[in-house]
Amino acid sequence: MVPVVGTEGTHYIVEAAGCSEEIISDPKKIEQIFKEAARVANMTVKASHFFRFSQGGVSGAVIVAESHISLHTWPEVGYAAIDVYTCGDSDPEKAVDYILDRIGAKYAHVSEVRRGIPEDDGTFTHTILTWEEKRDRNK
Amino acid sequence: MVPVVGTEGTHYIVEAAGCSEEIISDPKKIEQIFKEAARVANMTVKASHFFRFSQGGVSGAVIVAESHISLHTWPEVGYAAIDVYTCGDSDPEKAVDYILDRIGAKYAHVSEVRRGIPEDDGTFTHTILTWEEKRDRNK
Repeated sequence: MVPVVGTEGTHYIVEAAGCSEEIISDPKKIEQIFKEAARVANMTVKASHFFRFSQGGVSGAVIVAESHISLHTWPEVGYAAIDVYTCGDSDPEKAVDYILDRIGAKYAHVSEVRRGIPEDDGTFTHTILTWEEKRDRNK
Repeated sequence: MVPVVGTEGTHYIVEAAGCSEEIISDPKKIEQIFKEAARVANMTVKASHFFRFSQGGVSGAVIVAESHISLHTWPEVGYAAIDVYTCGDSDPEKAVDYILDRIGAKYAHVSEVRRGIPEDDGTFTHTILTWEEKRDRNK
């Protein structure tokens, strides 16, 4: 029998504010930052795709072996919506921290969703913990 | 001045159980289902990438102009972790419904996250509503 791989994973849902308008307008910089975030967090990159809208926002994702990290930005208001979802032995909080540093976020509203929690009846659930974070790295 | 595009979006976080082991093991079928889900929900596909792990699970995402839809599966226990995140004039709940039907899910634990809600101080927040759903489509 094939051993069951653990279904549990951690998914950070992040609303980042006060971000660098220049950086979050640039799909090439964002792709570099996201690939490096995957490396820092011990994830394996399988594919990535980022593009810029005519309005200036950047959208895209890195698919990693351990799940995905994605972003959608509104540079005109310094806002980036970020997801980091991983399973296995990676360090998703390191990826979140790295990304928030590099995009110069001053504030983040974060929910940590523990996904794929097995229930006794064969279904799966998730739990959610939310917090706010002031960041002082982009003086 | 460029008009600010609305930052608000809807993100469904779904733990689907009782899914068809055959379908959620097949990256080609999943990619077809996800592209069609994007169409049904009035989204514009920009890129997609799905792959199969050696253990049998499928992982990947469709990047749509309106944000992204992604999935990670554990066929051996009938479990799929699904995200549908969209902004603008699309119908994300239609995508969720379509996907759950096509993968034969019997049960779903769903959180609906309203993202990118502007606060008075220039930051952004999200709100979360969670429910459970029994599905009767895959008799």
